[in-house]
Amino acid sequence: MSPKITTELLKQLRQVMKNPRYVQEPVQAYIVPSGDAHQSEYIAPCDCRRAFISGFDGSAGTAIVTEQHAAMWTDGRYFLQAAHQMDSNWTLMKMGLKDTPTQEDWLVSVLPEGSKVGVDPFIIPADQWKRMSKVLRSAGHDLVPVKGNLIDTIWTDCPQRPCKPLITLDLSYTGLSWRDKIVALRSKMAERKVMWFVVTALDEVAWLFNLRGSDVEYNPVFFAYAIIGVNTIRLFIDGDRMMDPAVREHLQLDSTLEPEFKIQVMPYGSILSELQAVGAGLSPKEKVWLSDKASYALTEAIPKAYRYLTPYTPICIAKAVKNAAETEGMRRAHIKDAVALCELFNWLEKEVPKGTITEIVAADKAEEFRSQQKDFVELSFATISSTGPNGAIIHYKPVPETNRTLSVNEIYLLDSGAQYKDGTTDVTRTMHFGTPSAYEKECFTYVLKGHIAVSAAIFPNGTKGHLLDSFARSALWDCGLDYLHGTGHGVGSFLNVHEGPCGISYKTFADEPLEAGMIVSDEPGYYEDGSFGIRIENVVLVIPAETKYNFKNRGSLTFEPLTLVPIQTKMIDVNLLTEKECNWVNEYHQKCREVVGAELERQGRHEALRWLLRETEPLARVQ
Amino acid sequence: MSPKITTELLKQLRQVMKNPRYVQEPVQAYIVPSGDAHQSEYIAPCDCRRAFISGFDGSAGTAIVTEQHAAMWTDGRYFLQAAHQMDSNWTLMKMGLKDTPTQEDWLVSVLPEGSKVGVDPFIIPADQWKRMSKVLRSAGHDLVPVKGNLIDTIWTDCPQRPCKPLITLDLSYTGLSWRDKIVALRSKMAERKVMWFVVTALDEVAWLFNLRGSDVEYNPVFFAYAIIGVNTIRLFIDGDRMMDPAVREHLQLDSTLEPEFKIQVMPYGSILSELQAVGAGLSPKEKVWLSDKASYALTEAIPKAYRYLTPYTPICIAKAVKNAAETEGMRRAHIKDAVALCELFNWLEKEVPKGTITEIVAADKAEEFRSQQKDFVELSFATISSTGPNGAIIHYKPVPETNRTLSVNEIYLLDSGAQYKDGTTDVTRTMHFGTPSAYEKECFTYVLKGHIAVSAAIFPNGTKGHLLDSFARSALWDCGLDYLHGTGHGVGSFLNVHEGPCGISYKTFADEPLEAGMIVSDEPGYYEDGSFGIRIENVVLVIPAETKYNFKNRGSLTFEPLTLVPIQTKMIDVNLLTEKECNWVNEYHQKCREVVGAELERQGRHEALRWLLRETEPLARVQ
Repeated sequence: MSPKITTELLKQLRQVMKNPRYVQEPVQAYIVPSGDAHQSEYIAPCDCRRAFISGFDGSAGTAIVTEQHAAMWTDGRYFLQAAHQMDSNWTLMKMGLKDTPTQEDWLVSVLPEGSKVGVDPFIIPADQWKRMSKVLRSAGHDLVPVKGNLIDTIWTDCPQRPCKPLITLDLSYTGLSWRDKIVALRSKMAERKVMWFVVTALDEVAWLFNLRGSDVEYNPVFFAYAIIGVNTIRLFIDGDRMMDPAVREHLQLDSTLEPEFKIQVMPYGSILSELQAVGAGLSPKEKVWLSDKASYALTEAIPKAYRYLTPYTPICIAKAVKNAAETEGMRRAHIKDAVALCELFNWLEKEVPKGTITEIVAADKAEEFRSQQKDFVELSFATISSTGPNGAIIHYKPVPETNRTLSVNEIYLLDSGAQYKDGTTDVTRTMHFGTPSAYEKECFTYVLKGHIAVSAAIFPNGTKGHLLDSFARSALWDCGLDYLHGTGHGVGSFLNVHEGPCGISYKTFADEPLEAGMIVSDEPGYYEDGSFGIRIENVVLVIPAETKYNFKNRGSLTFEPLTLVPIQTKMIDVNLLTEKECNWVNEYHQKCREVVGAELERQGRHEALRWLLRETEPLARVQ
Repeated sequence: MSPKITTELLKQLRQVMKNPRYVQEPVQAYIVPSGDAHQSEYIAPCDCRRAFISGFDGSAGTAIVTEQHAAMWTDGRYFLQAAHQMDSNWTLMKMGLKDTPTQEDWLVSVLPEGSKVGVDPFIIPADQWKRMSKVLRSAGHDLVPVKGNLIDTIWTDCPQRPCKPLITLDLSYTGLSWRDKIVALRSKMAERKVMWFVVTALDEVAWLFNLRGSDVEYNPVFFAYAIIGVNTIRLFIDGDRMMDPAVREHLQLDSTLEPEFKIQVMPYGSILSELQAVGAGLSPKEKVWLSDKASYALTEAIPKAYRYLTPYTPICIAKAVKNAAETEGMRRAHIKDAVALCELFNWLEKEVPKGTITEIVAADKAEEFRSQQKDFVELSFATISSTGPNGAIIHYKPVPETNRTLSVNEIYLLDSGAQYKDGTTDVTRTMHFGTPSAYEKECFTYVLKGHIAVSAAIFPNGTKGHLLDSFARSALWDCGLDYLHGTGHGVGSFLNVHEGPCGISYKTFADEPLEAGMIVSDEPGYYEDGSFGIRIENVVLVIPAETKYNFKNRGSLTFEPLTLVPIQTKMIDVNLLTEKECNWVNEYHQKCREVVGAELERQGRHEALRWLLRETEPLARVQ
């Protein structure tokens, strides 16, 4: 990787920062956050403004350019990558290190008195604006919204905003019509005495209307907003997509409908003016519900006294609890995904010893096998295919410069997943195609113990996921080991592979309690810099648990693995497992045999079936 | 318990709420929080204003009186007690229930437009004021500070503020002179570029100056404030206490000292005016450090731009990490405490079958045995001595109306502790003096497994206590059981039995990471309403742990029990224990034998020694 040369670009940006054509008053600093107008985690190429101006294209980072400086804040996952991708115009600000100033503090330290700091109000979330603005104001500066993104003015070959066709999902996939979802949403609005709800997150728009798109890679979403009133529905979306007869019928655009279910389709770009009109027409006590992470621009459209902001919207919470149709879809998707991975691992077992399989080849082969499955749409994230020392880079993605050949002497870690029309998958398996060392097996077994501790945990209804995180670490901690990432994230149903409002992490975040029907990942790991990485990840469904007693009638929950891919027994030091853990592995493998075995059989994939049977032989503990 | 008749008192309070002698403008509501001007958990009789006005004397509760209403907010521990103690003038607001309004929301719903809500600015913490004031203002009301407490104006027989003699602690107890503590504090102030530090919490003043008092029952503290400058020390304290030659010498009041260690003694009541003078004299960039829980009155004395507020003060954090002298003192205190409890349980074993021992008699006997020990000062909290169904009331304290006789048919729970000059103890044991049922043993054993899971946990340096809470619950959760309180709290060294900034709880609070030298309690439980209560509590010291590996060179921690009192083996279903758990119990009991046995021997308490030896026979698991 050679760094991007940004001298000329920065010169241009600094010019437009003073150009009255673009800014009302000159700004002395301009902030370029990651993210788009919907605060998405994954973004479209046209929204990769921070990568364009700096060269650094990791998933998280904020650039700030002043007359004199250009600085980039990013976290530990990306220190190395950012340092490689940026030229000497840029200063890397390593977040999480003690001496690294916050963006606000840095701005205060470098700006001349009474400076204006500009930012695109559509890109910055309202809560971030508030925090930043407060600090800047108390130091005598001003955070100002700059209409029209300044990067766009100098990005001459900026790709167009994608506007791909939509997919309609019928009841067999969604379990609930969009009309019923609107009814449920309006009842939540009534509970909170709210008159309007603004849908700003792309996956929330997609879920609400039972539509999917492909505007953003890996995430089956499309650029749109919606405003739901107590008897109006406005959908803000561009392009010919609304001319598609299937979409028109799905949304009943041409039917005679009760007025409260009539969808008014409006241009994507008119959201702000429409919302301002809503804001201007409010009577006292009429509130508008927005996520507190919605953009500053949209939040400001509603006068402060009329805003009702929450960290999680009612759609976010409803979307997280999968209904029967969604759960069944997720099960089907995971069985197909397991078939693809049995094929892959069987193939790797034969090919790796020949010394011709690289990380990229393996990743491509995984995609090939997945694409053979019914209702396959695309991958759900960039495949992490890593062998040996590359496995220790937690967010590794093989590129030609780093591409390593799989061998019988190194651990191979594959974290991959797909979007099927009936569900989203995300699975990590760690394999050895030769003979693992005792130490590698020991570490793998601690990770497995942590994985089982979460997966088999029984906990009361109302428990938040973060209370389970230590279970995943306990076996590692006992030996002085640990891993520096969370244990699990919410998973969408043919939607984003990362979704709120629940998760399993040591980081204190305002997660919502786990409830039956929620789906999360369980993925502890262990990474040894320069040597290897181990991670074992299943997607698991929260289900009710039967318990001997039932304190205060609260009921209990546990997890059911949806992922059904063998865990390599060769990597397990069975003497480190308790009897209960050993039984868990054997029962899990028995289920893989039964469920995935039947599907392999049905698909006539006999060699992969034989591999599955070999890999799922019961473990036996020495008593 | 018959309720307190408050009709006349409420009438008087409503009169002073409008009386220009006491309020600048009439207030339509008056808030009476728990707590004193130091935001103490335990308060002196003169500060029990909420109990005076309402009759409800639980440890937590806030009263609000308006022209029409009188309402009391308290939590689940006190619903029953509050309902019994208050007459029909009062409405009980059950905190934690879904339909219970917050104080702010309730005020907004009952007050006429443009109301004034009064509160004593010394009693309300600044962070609470801020939250409440914001909500009230946005609804058109005003939160106003009322100088002079309105309850005091109608409390004709209000007891005097205590002003008891002080105890000086020498280096053998404290390990660090007050001068060295001031030096360390000033270095923390320099790190944060702060010019002044205001000590508002009573235990922080006591710790800083190596003094103890007895102004508040159970807490060896005294009413005082301090303001520490970069070269001044002001101590605000009343009474003849500063005439005591021992105190004068301890504080070197009459010595020729470097000016920066010269203590200026000032009247307790002059803190506000002195702090206002400090506030008025600040140059730009000179900051004043206060706890964000300090009173609104003191916080307001410093102009906003000059305040430096943190949830935990540097004293709170330094105080939590015990030095070698303090740790040794805590060890000694716990050995003496164990001697007293061995005597008690031996005595109970003989006396209970006679049917004459009540909860109060047992509690008094525990105090008697403790008071025989060297350097005993007082109890560290009101003894929870509870048998049968009373054990299920988590914060039970026996009174004549509830006093129950111990018997061979019921479980007995004793949660008690003492202040010794060398340390503070807090221990809970659950005993059966007859034959426990299989179910009682089962529940006890789950609680024990949770206790051991925390006590034996190994975790990385930097781990926060709340991440360990689920370990204590896992065995209970597996069977559908749980307990509705936290697992542990910080414990002071001859100071408050509850102290910050660490603890072990499922409640997300901003606890500081555990570090070697911190001392917390480990006290899981199980409570069955109407039947019995089980709790097993040790005070444990955070110590470095030896581990096989050492990830990122972070180092690991674990706990060492300071409490050395046998855990009744009769209550244990040994077949529910793992081998590791069984070994833990046997090693713990072996240590009790060695350490406490030697002390019992030394004190010539041979019968109690024989009891100890009987109670610490090793467990044997059926293989």
